[in-house]
Amino acid sequence: MISVLKEEFLKHLDKKVEVNHPKNLYEPIAYILGLGGKKIRPLLTLLSADAFGIDYKKALDAALAIELFHNFTLIHDDIMDAAPLRRGNITVHKKWGINRGILSGDAMMVLAYQNLEAYNDEVFKKLNRLFSKTALEVCDGQQLDVDFETRSNVTVDEYIEMISLKTSVLVGCALKFGAVIANASDVEADKIYKFGLNLGIAFQLQDDYLDTFGNSKSFGKQVGGDIIENKKTLLFLTALKLSNNEDKEKLRKMYAEKHQNNDDKVLAVIAIFNKYEVPSLIKQEIEKYTKKSFEILETVNIPDEKKQMLYLFGENLMNRNV
Amino acid sequence: MISVLKEEFLKHLDKKVEVNHPKNLYEPIAYILGLGGKKIRPLLTLLSADAFGIDYKKALDAALAIELFHNFTLIHDDIMDAAPLRRGNITVHKKWGINRGILSGDAMMVLAYQNLEAYNDEVFKKLNRLFSKTALEVCDGQQLDVDFETRSNVTVDEYIEMISLKTSVLVGCALKFGAVIANASDVEADKIYKFGLNLGIAFQLQDDYLDTFGNSKSFGKQVGGDIIENKKTLLFLTALKLSNNEDKEKLRKMYAEKHQNNDDKVLAVIAIFNKYEVPSLIKQEIEKYTKKSFEILETVNIPDEKKQMLYLFGENLMNRNV
Repeated sequence: MISVLKEEFLKHLDKKVEVNHPKNLYEPIAYILGLGGKKIRPLLTLLSADAFGIDYKKALDAALAIELFHNFTLIHDDIMDAAPLRRGNITVHKKWGINRGILSGDAMMVLAYQNLEAYNDEVFKKLNRLFSKTALEVCDGQQLDVDFETRSNVTVDEYIEMISLKTSVLVGCALKFGAVIANASDVEADKIYKFGLNLGIAFQLQDDYLDTFGNSKSFGKQVGGDIIENKKTLLFLTALKLSNNEDKEKLRKMYAEKHQNNDDKVLAVIAIFNKYEVPSLIKQEIEKYTKKSFEILETVNIPDEKKQMLYLFGENLMNRNV
Repeated sequence: MISVLKEEFLKHLDKKVEVNHPKNLYEPIAYILGLGGKKIRPLLTLLSADAFGIDYKKALDAALAIELFHNFTLIHDDIMDAAPLRRGNITVHKKWGINRGILSGDAMMVLAYQNLEAYNDEVFKKLNRLFSKTALEVCDGQQLDVDFETRSNVTVDEYIEMISLKTSVLVGCALKFGAVIANASDVEADKIYKFGLNLGIAFQLQDDYLDTFGNSKSFGKQVGGDIIENKKTLLFLTALKLSNNEDKEKLRKMYAEKHQNNDDKVLAVIAIFNKYEVPSLIKQEIEKYTKKSFEILETVNIPDEKKQMLYLFGENLMNRNV
């Protein structure tokens, strides 16, 4: 089922996203969409539509809107993070400069909105309203992420709020899109949204884990990037809480400045993470949010075999090592 | 009338645009909106709604969407143009860095869409569809503008296409918003759109003229900025067409590279413009598009005194020296 959905989605994407005039604007859009990626978010929209009892094909345009929006945020975030790699390839702004990154990202956001026009007036407004709310939350989350890089007193709660906004609300939105298109009740649509919210937090924590402990080749991003960028991830916050005074001091110092020799910094930070068994503690947190998401999924009023499908998709996401 | 509309619009803007959490995201938004400016586009939305027979207050949210979108483009364009000044003040990215400029611009575009949610499902979809189409055209226009900086064979037609996309479609959209909210027929809505399109071209040509020949203090931008940035404006294209071989060569050479001493470049280019009487030729072009816009306005099915109001507003715009 999943591989069929993915194939259909990619066909739809190819059909709808064209390199129009001016080429310099649309080329980066085609480039980033063509870099592969798991297409998790659009697949969730299709799975959700199917789970709520309609032909998933009716959700293809909404799924594409989600994917376009997600990729727009990747282009702009990569500029802000000065990231060299995305999905194992050179980032848009490294390839074509910051200006084309900014502008093609802007155009992608508009294209995302345009793909919602396929729906009737009532559904269109519901989707649009949720989409704008989500998009603004994602901007809020990205700003908090940037703010945290230069703050030394970030709390765990603040961190969870930040990743909820930056990552999870879009996962919730993707799932709720399917429910809205299928005319599910508000109660059911909100449940599937909350399933996504918790799954999204688990997913982002997993992403943070892999950023430090993942396999460079298969991860597709620069491993250790979060450490280099002084991101106050849950790994860092947990290590800071458990460290003795000497290690606390070391961590604080390393995260207070940008370094010339990043390899040394990454290795030193990882050594402290391992010393305090941070990897296994983070895995417990990931497990906690995953479990919570599945408990919510259990309460959604959809057939058991559809639940099973969403459950398996979630399980798969959490067992990835890339 | 105009000053009442402007006052009401500014009150509405103040009420609806808040500096939310996170402050670093919303501060630049409040900053650029607070820099003054003539508020031409939102006023056109209000005037159009009034002209088509409804209370202009019903169009305040749509007018705000237009203003938010316009200011989002200013923030991102200023980054791309490395512009130091906007409305006589330091630009957002110069004040807070490129990253905050990118992100607050993104958020502003979403806020623009959100302000359309005030309208019923049917009107909402019409506004949204026109808005997205316009927004994408503005991105196309901005990309062409950037492309032209490094191209030596830009034609007058290409230049007019570029400014139509970059500037005029939003003027048309602003006017059509008023018509759509007032439930005007498609035919009338399209006429007012075309009035805006031609007025917008005249306005942009005027802006180009003032960029080179305006008064630095009252213009609010860096005078000569277009020359420094090698913008192939109609001034440049006209001069190039009329110049003798020696002056052609000079112009081409000066526009082929970025210079250390910009003051010398600006003065040398202006001297050639004046030699071939480019200022008066451009003024004729401005007159041509202004006249065309008024001819279209004449055919719109609205009361004569409303036409007169739009006519006076347009006349005023074209007689500005700032």
